[in-house]
Amino acid sequence: MTATKPWDQYGDYLGLDKILTAQHPRSTAAGHPAHDELLFIQFHQVYELWFKQILFELDDVITRLSGDTVDEHDMQPITTYLGRIVEIFKQTESMVDVLETMPPQSFVDFREYLGTASGFQSAQFRLIETRLGLERKQRLCVFHGEFDDNLCPASKGAIAQAETRPTLFQSLDSWLSRTPFVNLGDYTFWKEYRAAVHVMFDEKMRAAQAALLGDTLTQELEAIERGKQKFESIFDETQHAQAQKEGRWRLSWKALQAALFITIYRGEPVLQAPYAVLKNIMDIDELLARWRFRHALIVQRMVGMSMGSGGSSGYEYLMNTVTSHRIFTDVFALSTYLIPSRLLPKLPAEISGAMDYRYNKKETK
Amino acid sequence: MTATKPWDQYGDYLGLDKILTAQHPRSTAAGHPAHDELLFIQFHQVYELWFKQILFELDDVITRLSGDTVDEHDMQPITTYLGRIVEIFKQTESMVDVLETMPPQSFVDFREYLGTASGFQSAQFRLIETRLGLERKQRLCVFHGEFDDNLCPASKGAIAQAETRPTLFQSLDSWLSRTPFVNLGDYTFWKEYRAAVHVMFDEKMRAAQAALLGDTLTQELEAIERGKQKFESIFDETQHAQAQKEGRWRLSWKALQAALFITIYRGEPVLQAPYAVLKNIMDIDELLARWRFRHALIVQRMVGMSMGSGGSSGYEYLMNTVTSHRIFTDVFALSTYLIPSRLLPKLPAEISGAMDYRYNKKETK
Amino acid sequence: MTATKPWDQYGDYLGLDKILTAQHPRSTAAGHPAHDELLFIQFHQVYELWFKQILFELDDVITRLSGDTVDEHDMQPITTYLGRIVEIFKQTESMVDVLETMPPQSFVDFREYLGTASGFQSAQFRLIETRLGLERKQRLCVFHGEFDDNLCPASKGAIAQAETRPTLFQSLDSWLSRTPFVNLGDYTFWKEYRAAVHVMFDEKMRAAQAALLGDTLTQELEAIERGKQKFESIFDETQHAQAQKEGRWRLSWKALQAALFITIYRGEPVLQAPYAVLKNIMDIDELLARWRFRHALIVQRMVGMSMGSGGSSGYEYLMNTVTSHRIFTDVFALSTYLIPSRLLPKLPAEISGAMDYRYNKKETK
Amino acid sequence: MTATKPWDQYGDYLGLDKILTAQHPRSTAAGHPAHDELLFIQFHQVYELWFKQILFELDDVITRLSGDTVDEHDMQPITTYLGRIVEIFKQTESMVDVLETMPPQSFVDFREYLGTASGFQSAQFRLIETRLGLERKQRLCVFHGEFDDNLCPASKGAIAQAETRPTLFQSLDSWLSRTPFVNLGDYTFWKEYRAAVHVMFDEKMRAAQAALLGDTLTQELEAIERGKQKFESIFDETQHAQAQKEGRWRLSWKALQAALFITIYRGEPVLQAPYAVLKNIMDIDELLARWRFRHALIVQRMVGMSMGSGGSSGYEYLMNTVTSHRIFTDVFALSTYLIPSRLLPKLPAEISGAMDYRYNKKETK
Repeated sequence: MTATKPWDQYGDYLGLDKILTAQHPRSTAAGHPAHDELLFIQFHQVYELWFKQILFELDDVITRLSGDTVDEHDMQPITTYLGRIVEIFKQTESMVDVLETMPPQSFVDFREYLGTASGFQSAQFRLIETRLGLERKQRLCVFHGEFDDNLCPASKGAIAQAETRPTLFQSLDSWLSRTPFVNLGDYTFWKEYRAAVHVMFDEKMRAAQAALLGDTLTQELEAIERGKQKFESIFDETQHAQAQKEGRWRLSWKALQAALFITIYRGEPVLQAPYAVLKNIMDIDELLARWRFRHALIVQRMVGMSMGSGGSSGYEYLMNTVTSHRIFTDVFALSTYLIPSRLLPKLPAEISGAMDYRYNKKETK
Repeated sequence: MTATKPWDQYGDYLGLDKILTAQHPRSTAAGHPAHDELLFIQFHQVYELWFKQILFELDDVITRLSGDTVDEHDMQPITTYLGRIVEIFKQTESMVDVLETMPPQSFVDFREYLGTASGFQSAQFRLIETRLGLERKQRLCVFHGEFDDNLCPASKGAIAQAETRPTLFQSLDSWLSRTPFVNLGDYTFWKEYRAAVHVMFDEKMRAAQAALLGDTLTQELEAIERGKQKFESIFDETQHAQAQKEGRWRLSWKALQAALFITIYRGEPVLQAPYAVLKNIMDIDELLARWRFRHALIVQRMVGMSMGSGGSSGYEYLMNTVTSHRIFTDVFALSTYLIPSRLLPKLPAEISGAMDYRYNKKETK
Repeated sequence: MTATKPWDQYGDYLGLDKILTAQHPRSTAAGHPAHDELLFIQFHQVYELWFKQILFELDDVITRLSGDTVDEHDMQPITTYLGRIVEIFKQTESMVDVLETMPPQSFVDFREYLGTASGFQSAQFRLIETRLGLERKQRLCVFHGEFDDNLCPASKGAIAQAETRPTLFQSLDSWLSRTPFVNLGDYTFWKEYRAAVHVMFDEKMRAAQAALLGDTLTQELEAIERGKQKFESIFDETQHAQAQKEGRWRLSWKALQAALFITIYRGEPVLQAPYAVLKNIMDIDELLARWRFRHALIVQRMVGMSMGSGGSSGYEYLMNTVTSHRIFTDVFALSTYLIPSRLLPKLPAEISGAMDYRYNKKETK
Repeated sequence: MTATKPWDQYGDYLGLDKILTAQHPRSTAAGHPAHDELLFIQFHQVYELWFKQILFELDDVITRLSGDTVDEHDMQPITTYLGRIVEIFKQTESMVDVLETMPPQSFVDFREYLGTASGFQSAQFRLIETRLGLERKQRLCVFHGEFDDNLCPASKGAIAQAETRPTLFQSLDSWLSRTPFVNLGDYTFWKEYRAAVHVMFDEKMRAAQAALLGDTLTQELEAIERGKQKFESIFDETQHAQAQKEGRWRLSWKALQAALFITIYRGEPVLQAPYAVLKNIMDIDELLARWRFRHALIVQRMVGMSMGSGGSSGYEYLMNTVTSHRIFTDVFALSTYLIPSRLLPKLPAEISGAMDYRYNKKETK
């Protein structure tokens, strides 16, 4: 660095000699320069820079979450980096506003020079999906063969290697499963919660019997019974196992209990950060879905119902991945099983005490 | 106004005595005040204010577009008001960020007091859909019966009345159909464009024959033939009529031609504003779809897979409307039929001349 | 509610009979209907709804922070509601995009009917400023007299009453001042930190002496000495008192120490939520400033350098408030006094232990 | 390209071998890896990619606007590319959300390794300012010397060269000055407009005299007289020349007249695109100011009141440039001189006719 002039520090630091010389519009090379191709190139370069950042943060978070125990000090970087991924996905979504200034006719003018280059070949995006927890079997395939057939050998290898490491989904599941307060001493959250749920349904039944008659009452009682059965399906380990097998639940039974415990008692000191993690996870899942959705819409705007660049089936394929490639819908599904606060079981003093700070001499409520 | 004190002018002007006293949290009335209900109420009140504005702008635009001829001076307010609807829909989408600060457990605490109140009863939103051009037969039904069964008689009447008036889709279609330059004197755009398309496919065929052999060549030639047939289906009036009947196209044959003409020759002075209208229409269609998508996601976050408030089927229903309730996908589909600029037929001098300004003495190229 | 038809529930719940009938464009009443006045009215009604929500959340947060002790369980609602205010301010800023679709000429067409109505009369906005901690003496005055001279007696009274209650700034300051870990047993954070700062400056001095000569060295040593004095000014109670008197610091000496402690040791379990509070406070301060800035810009766009509506001095006044009405710049100023992590004093075991959770048997590092 | 494997097309096309290998965190090189430095680097790389795009679009727009006459067909790309710059500046502003996830303490951990690297050395940003029209004499200097002293010789040369070429401000001014309709045949816009302004002030005077008495009347009449004089200052060529000399106006007298003409009669077909240009220019000026503002705020958040990296004076300098480096405030100032539409002079038939399309046989009103 010694020979660097003071004024070169900024450009040197940012590698601008590489960054600003990496744009080679093919329409120019082909002798039919299309004004908008530079935007198209740089737009995707910005995507790839953000993708690199997302992978970097994901790697750190997964490593911290995957240890045998997670040091509580780690909750700060974990929530910070997950929150950063949230903000980056917001950018990848909103920056499509820039690409939408390109008239479709302008895209046609350089599209023929793109050859088989396609966003489906973005190894970093595939890695993000894999590291988040998208499974190979869950992926929609564009045509025949495997999704990574159009990746280069190095990228294929990187994906294969990533598939052997813990994903965010897996590390989240095992971290949740270890939550000590769900079953501590004599306390069993699941038992307490099931009792509260029964109280809620009893209340509903009595209210229906007091207010309704005849067929209306019958229908209402049937609806209440269906609601009750829905709750029972998560209380019962066998039913949950069956649901997992059928792909209706992906979270393990233990993780599901802990996630619900955290959602309900989110105000307890030790649960505030875990609750932030669950919210971050939902935000990431939502934003990835929203980004996929906008991506599908810009493709539809630019090429209509044509085959996508690179020979993919384009808009329909992308639109299908919006819902089918989601990874953390189970965290959203938790809300199905919430009951009003006034009916929630109070935490025993020894449980809430364990979740408080040491400096607090007094027992919490 | 004479009795109004100077300092009351602002509040008087904005009707703040009504606006700021229209919040009545039911959880408070029920004796179990839930902090987040005020947000829930005001959030939906903001929605309804924006909806009123959208209806007001839509009404003006449709009126202007529906005349026998559209005064070119009207293109300024038309693009301004459509652009405003775009910005409003951006707000209705982004403001969901505020509602996402509500923990699902907090929603449960006042949800039981909402009774049958449901966003499905928003008469203004239903009117927006109808006025844009969503048809009754196109609507997904929540259960049985008609979509407007849960609207009050006055709102049902308003919808029924709106169904007798021109929609944005209809007025757009007839306005496009009247575009004079598509067939003017000896000039027939469709004939010229078809010839250019044939040149493109001949070029592709020759390139394939020069570069490929055997099965690869056969496959490529078949793909080219399929592409050609796709174009023929819009050039041929009978095929288009069939496509309309089967719901694959909604735009009339004449409107489709004009829309493609405008998309291609968007730089001609008289086409710059119409092109802006087409872009605005795509933006509105996209943003309404994005708003539906976020709405579905926040419902999933708040109630999981539960039945929605008001007895609706919730998340799945809303997610299904995202694509099935779209109205202007035909404008996006136009891009399927674009060809590179270098192959586009040049406009005859009398056509481009007619599309220029009078003050311009010289003939445009 | 018994007489309400099912379909009226939604409109009833949201008070739509009030909300949607509170728009009375004066240009229409005057016989010169201006299309854009409805937007202008509803835009400000949305502002006022969001303002009401901000006041509601602020009130809750200040109450929780103002107690003699703050229950750690309260950190969850405190950060949630502050985070919500952040999101609302983002909306009030971004919604200006909608108003920018109004051509200035359209504003002129109804501006003459606004009389003395002016945004300066928004009692709720004035209350937000006061409750956040903007002091009467700090306010720029539009002309002569007091800022609230153009508010109605009831609003003036509400402001006066708010001035007798704790503000967010005050409750933040006293809450910070009570942070127990800053001085606990033998441990005095300020002493430890001062020592670490000295080590940093010694390091810098030695590096300068090893690398530089002559005048360059002299200048560098002077710069280092200035840096050192800057730090000393916060370590020394008398100097801080003087700075407070001169308005260079607003935070009390104790609060300043605690805020720096929290910023530095933000990973300690008990400090994670307080750090989130400090970040929320900076976000709110930034977003309020950004909203003021956009508000000044839209006023400049609509009326140029004219006197604002209501006789105020318009753009310049608003632009001046952007920086002069900021309340929490002290929290930003903390960053002036940070040193690299590798130089930070390690926390004694009894301090970090007290800040951890009870369930954690092992002593944290 | 022949040797490229299909799967390498995407990476090859985007130059990912350069883009994704241009990150070299110095804290890692120094043996104290700071997690957040990668974000810091990539964040600024994204900035530079967007800057390159802005320069590319600016160059095209200036070239088109700088010809002796501007082909009306060029208005389409001009408004498209200006609109694109608007969207890019929105991104450069909103992406600060990502950087705000970096705790100030984390920045301190690698700041010491940045040496004299500083955003002030971004040659591309300086070029954007210059090409937009920021003049050397208008620039705030950080210390002593010229603003480009800390740029490398090549960048200094690029700036110097840019200073010899037309800027966006200059090309806008001369393009506006050539607007033919402002003075056409017997028609002189300025004369007509001045007469209408006088009618407005006469009306105001009569209204005051009818409604007010004594001192109030005197004061009101004085205020009206001041308003009148303000208008006279733009009608009078000598006064405008003086204002230009004193830096109160930057637009030439002819450009000012044309800009007002376009603002007022924006609905005339030939003025719709020029009006869009004026709106784009205001949007760009506003967004650049907003970006500067956020940049100042993030600097304040990260380093407080410290000297900025690279030895600059940091936050205060940046905050000062927010208003002092604005370039197109004259376009905002136009709104000062608007009058209600009902008082606007009607355009003579030959003027409005000239501004219409040739195909329109009927004379427009």
